[in-house]
Amino acid sequence: MSETNATPTYPSVKDLTLEEKASLTSGGDAWHLQSVEHKGIPGYMITDGPHGLRKSLASNTSETDLNDSVPATCFPPAAGLSSSWNPALIRKVGEVMGEECVQEKVAVILGPGVNIKRNPLGGRCFEYWSEDPYLAGHEAVGIVEGVQSKGVGTSLKHFAANNQETDRLRVDARISQRALREIYLPAFEHIVKTAQPWTIMCSYNRINGVHSAQNHWLLTDVLRDEWGFKGIVMSDWGADHDRVASLNAGLNLEMPPSYTDDQIVYAARDGRIDPAQLDRMAQGMIDLTNKARAAMSIDGYRFDVDAHDEVARQAAVESIVMLKNEDAILPIDPAGGKKLAVIGEFARTPRYQGGGSSHITPTKMTSFLDALDERGIKADFAPGFTLDLAPADSALTLEAVETARDADVVLMFLGLPEEAESEGFDRTTLDIPAKQIELLRQVAAENPNVVVVLSNGSVVTVHPWADASKSILESWLLGQAGGRALADVVFGEASPSGKLAQSIPMDINDDPSMLNWPGEEGHVDYGEGVFVGYRYYDTYNKAVDYPFGYGLSYATFEIGDVAVAKTGANTASVTATVTNTSDTPAAETVQVYVAPGKADVARPVHELKGFEKVFLGAGESKTVTIELNERAFAYWSEKYNDWHVEAGEYTVEVGVSSRDIAASIAVTLDGDGKSMPLNEWSTFGEWSADPVGAKVVEAVGAAGERGDMPKLPDNDMMRLFLNSMPINSLPTLLGESGKDLTAFMLDEYAALTK
Amino acid sequence: MSETNATPTYPSVKDLTLEEKASLTSGGDAWHLQSVEHKGIPGYMITDGPHGLRKSLASNTSETDLNDSVPATCFPPAAGLSSSWNPALIRKVGEVMGEECVQEKVAVILGPGVNIKRNPLGGRCFEYWSEDPYLAGHEAVGIVEGVQSKGVGTSLKHFAANNQETDRLRVDARISQRALREIYLPAFEHIVKTAQPWTIMCSYNRINGVHSAQNHWLLTDVLRDEWGFKGIVMSDWGADHDRVASLNAGLNLEMPPSYTDDQIVYAARDGRIDPAQLDRMAQGMIDLTNKARAAMSIDGYRFDVDAHDEVARQAAVESIVMLKNEDAILPIDPAGGKKLAVIGEFARTPRYQGGGSSHITPTKMTSFLDALDERGIKADFAPGFTLDLAPADSALTLEAVETARDADVVLMFLGLPEEAESEGFDRTTLDIPAKQIELLRQVAAENPNVVVVLSNGSVVTVHPWADASKSILESWLLGQAGGRALADVVFGEASPSGKLAQSIPMDINDDPSMLNWPGEEGHVDYGEGVFVGYRYYDTYNKAVDYPFGYGLSYATFEIGDVAVAKTGANTASVTATVTNTSDTPAAETVQVYVAPGKADVARPVHELKGFEKVFLGAGESKTVTIELNERAFAYWSEKYNDWHVEAGEYTVEVGVSSRDIAASIAVTLDGDGKSMPLNEWSTFGEWSADPVGAKVVEAVGAAGERGDMPKLPDNDMMRLFLNSMPINSLPTLLGESGKDLTAFMLDEYAALTK
Repeated sequence: MSETNATPTYPSVKDLTLEEKASLTSGGDAWHLQSVEHKGIPGYMITDGPHGLRKSLASNTSETDLNDSVPATCFPPAAGLSSSWNPALIRKVGEVMGEECVQEKVAVILGPGVNIKRNPLGGRCFEYWSEDPYLAGHEAVGIVEGVQSKGVGTSLKHFAANNQETDRLRVDARISQRALREIYLPAFEHIVKTAQPWTIMCSYNRINGVHSAQNHWLLTDVLRDEWGFKGIVMSDWGADHDRVASLNAGLNLEMPPSYTDDQIVYAARDGRIDPAQLDRMAQGMIDLTNKARAAMSIDGYRFDVDAHDEVARQAAVESIVMLKNEDAILPIDPAGGKKLAVIGEFARTPRYQGGGSSHITPTKMTSFLDALDERGIKADFAPGFTLDLAPADSALTLEAVETARDADVVLMFLGLPEEAESEGFDRTTLDIPAKQIELLRQVAAENPNVVVVLSNGSVVTVHPWADASKSILESWLLGQAGGRALADVVFGEASPSGKLAQSIPMDINDDPSMLNWPGEEGHVDYGEGVFVGYRYYDTYNKAVDYPFGYGLSYATFEIGDVAVAKTGANTASVTATVTNTSDTPAAETVQVYVAPGKADVARPVHELKGFEKVFLGAGESKTVTIELNERAFAYWSEKYNDWHVEAGEYTVEVGVSSRDIAASIAVTLDGDGKSMPLNEWSTFGEWSADPVGAKVVEAVGAAGERGDMPKLPDNDMMRLFLNSMPINSLPTLLGESGKDLTAFMLDEYAALTK
Repeated sequence: MSETNATPTYPSVKDLTLEEKASLTSGGDAWHLQSVEHKGIPGYMITDGPHGLRKSLASNTSETDLNDSVPATCFPPAAGLSSSWNPALIRKVGEVMGEECVQEKVAVILGPGVNIKRNPLGGRCFEYWSEDPYLAGHEAVGIVEGVQSKGVGTSLKHFAANNQETDRLRVDARISQRALREIYLPAFEHIVKTAQPWTIMCSYNRINGVHSAQNHWLLTDVLRDEWGFKGIVMSDWGADHDRVASLNAGLNLEMPPSYTDDQIVYAARDGRIDPAQLDRMAQGMIDLTNKARAAMSIDGYRFDVDAHDEVARQAAVESIVMLKNEDAILPIDPAGGKKLAVIGEFARTPRYQGGGSSHITPTKMTSFLDALDERGIKADFAPGFTLDLAPADSALTLEAVETARDADVVLMFLGLPEEAESEGFDRTTLDIPAKQIELLRQVAAENPNVVVVLSNGSVVTVHPWADASKSILESWLLGQAGGRALADVVFGEASPSGKLAQSIPMDINDDPSMLNWPGEEGHVDYGEGVFVGYRYYDTYNKAVDYPFGYGLSYATFEIGDVAVAKTGANTASVTATVTNTSDTPAAETVQVYVAPGKADVARPVHELKGFEKVFLGAGESKTVTIELNERAFAYWSEKYNDWHVEAGEYTVEVGVSSRDIAASIAVTLDGDGKSMPLNEWSTFGEWSADPVGAKVVEAVGAAGERGDMPKLPDNDMMRLFLNSMPINSLPTLLGESGKDLTAFMLDEYAALTK
């Protein structure tokens, strides 16, 4: 036994009564864990994120106003931050958010949310990361690592398949195992395996009939047993509808409390809950408080408001995606004496975050107009329209057109007003309000030098009006420092470096999920399977306005010296050199896609499997190395109920968007060697194609020659039928003697494989 | 007791031993029922159809050559016949096929096949009817009625969801209940309910995990209990893999026999089969032989070969769809002295039927060149290419271009060679062979007056080459009299009157089933749900080359006086007057589509619910009346597990294709009054929208005012959350007192509804 007393002895589940254990499995109130004070277990606070801290001022009671919270730095929501393709930057954002949690004594910040943007109409797309699970996982992991490096927990959410707001509390998401494994789970999987978020929040919805909170397959089989998750699972607020079923499935914590801990006690007493399961769930809660104890014991800490604002600014700069820049209209030389017009209420009243539970009270707020003032840059401003869905105001229109007429450059701020997108509902159109488009047309008719700056949480169509602009900056929602970040980019202090984390389609009806959107009668069928986003557009050769991974720069780049080296039976290493061929320091993002060759299943034509953002001075070159592990080549096989890498040729593509590939290099993999034994349900064609089966087929032929077995038909049509026929159907072709042949084949196979 | 002896006393299942009953549940050989001769039960013959009789010369043994059969009239396969939109004509075809069965002593002819053309690549599309279940059912019913009017049975097949050839013997078709009920079953349902086919053939595939032969839901619950089917179900050849399970599910007859009747005997003895179920299945077999007895007793009957050939010709004429006819290049006046060139081997060697089990030996065969000879019309002929997928033969190309150069009109016969489509495999492209397109381009470069005549069993793309033609006749596969039928149309003896029974897409990747085609690892997900064919293209505004229901005529028509009258709460009667505004006698097909208004589920923008083909002399008018029953407005509700007609406005569209609507008239239906009781899983919004629920919500407000219940939040965001919240989640918003509110609401509702 140890004699030292240096490490305090934290409580363990062994020290608790049944009632105390049960009490730990629900919250103390809407925003606190339940304490067992006399046993030394505190009731720490947990609050909303995910792009900054939303610590409600009403946080110890039930909540009626999501906007009433303490000031915190408002970073760009994931729609913006995801366009940075910069995990180091994202980690930095996480670190400073963690510091704010320490100040506010928040033990767990709820986020990041890594659900896939299955359809851009989804109401929470603004706070999710991507249509691609690799990108979502490899970006959002930075938030988890950053926050947790400060001794504060995260809650990876919403696990899983919360891809819409419509009927989100009940809807049954009917998804194939393959689509779950390849599209809807990998972002969670990657973050769990590499960063061990302290907590995971389960989603409201059902998956294939089972509420996530009660889904043992999801919360235990996959999350803990397969992925090795060590933390706790909490319910989304109100997602736990059956305390006993949920605890048995692997839910540690009901939030907010429904004051039904006695149900757990009764069930543990009468055997509906295994005591060991209750111990596991309660111990998870104790472990969580123990992990948070150090940071929560720091008193009087104050984070650096200005420094955090500067992080928000850098994050915003890298969130901006330049879609178009004709005549190099951007950047604008602030000393060039150009007459500027700024049109659009968004320039004065920025839309910088989304609506709902993530709505933050920022520490500061700088609009684009404020940023112009800070720089001493003069511009004529006209709001042009009101930030709503009301009809156009002709006086505002007139003023805007007048203001734009004589300018050298018109900076036109368009986008979605807050009422057009929020948690709680899905959008019904991808278009920005008609009055804004009409204003743009009128302005462009007077002055062709229009730069459009877009503010929107999820994709909007640009197709209907792009011809009326020379340049388009997609700025998403940029957080509190967005105005200054936009000024940085517009005036050339920073080159845009954002890349699209989601495709911009021509028309929402081009999206294959529209056939099952947003579902009906309590369910939604994910009928498009794995063909989400660019996996659909690129595989089926469908035009888009701007492809996944796309984004322009003020600089120009070349990618060369692309090489792919096999590093194992089913792994490879990719190297490429990126050169900034311009005079402008800037960043380019090298993207690696894997294109499978002939496959046993329908695979996307290519999938993102690696990326690296490279910052380069004028004329500078850097070489990047990206490792491709076995998973990079695998698909989820429902036949094997496992990942499967087929042997054969794959193509590794290196480029700067999913449709701008600089080099494609073939690599031949050994495959993972998985195979299924032949049986009576295997077709004659499958027997012929199998190494052992082919020997049996040969023996069948020989037996036919000897007259021991029936002869097989030899005309083309009958051979075609035969090859597609399970061998248990041979009597259909051969009459009663077909039965003998089936038995002969199975016997021969058994002899050859025993 | 009756004293008369006029009606022979047929055997009944009561007269049979267990072994004899069991013996009736499998065939006697590959093409005969099993007899119980000493009990007076004959072993009648059953043979393949469906577009004519395929009575194999090897029919009493197992079969090795599908082409070796007795001569029979070869009618156009369903791909052609379905374009006639003429149920009376189709019934006539059935009648004469029935006569041929009488001559050949065939008790049951296997067909028609009414599976939906889910994807035009499907290998058996040539022998299926349509992408639309209403059209398929209302056309194919004519075959059943016609054949059975001669005392011979049909076998409606393949029940159900055989929509592809790939892995057809095993594949699990995973289909939503709604898609099954609205798309894949209605053609079967209509024919069963209106024509009682003597037999139905189950499909090979599985549906949602269960082989059709073993699918009690399919063969008993739906087919017999819901639809009232009185006949017997047989297995497709080799589709029965478990005699006991299949018999229990409702399969009467295993074909061909696997010589395992003892399994039925054992199972009946040990209770795995209920004796009553065996009696039902065996009695069905006895009933079948009894129904066939009269016709099978006719000796020496000979059908009229020439008369049947003439029916085949009329059927072929009405199968031809004119897609395009610039400059009125068709019809060609045979006395006009025009120099004709005929290019394409299909003109000499017609492709007139599909490959596989339906391959008939025709009684006669007239190619287009033969038809020219019959008429004494001179034309220069060059084959141009060989009927295969081999590369172009430059000598043939040269000869064809030379032949075409000086002609006034070039009739160019293009299409799919036999090896490109057949039962047994699915196509991988919609394109005709590249060498044919290349030849067309070369010919058109020399002579712009090109009429293309297409021969193909399922849709081919015309987009890649249509600009090189002035006219296109889509002639599908026309049966043995196709050459003369084409001559009838080309030379104006008959106006084309065919209408497309399937859309012609621009590109196969436009078809939404391509995302799940042809499936993988033993299953195929019908991810597009009900959005098959024009239901997708029209709903999602996708361009097609030629829409469903389309087809040109030599005449011109006007549709006027369109009126819709309500005939009941949820039924209506549509009248319209069609006028032939030309000098040419011809036929037009009036098509009625129903467009639902606002619906609780995602419904196709419109669906075909009635049609009538009208034959009109020059200048003649006729008024048609089309009744719309309740089903015409209904969708299949998974919530009610039943058809559901919502109250509200529907639009009745009358037109001549799905995209050429002459008049749209609104009709307001009462709805069927179905509603679900509210419960704790109903959202607050659903409570508010329900008449009784609204009273409860009012009481909640009053109780809040009195202070008896918590007050509901009143800001917009919280109201939005509240409205989407099942009332069992109220504690999430309201804390512990939310539980009281839930109970209060349920109590109030119970009081108001008791």
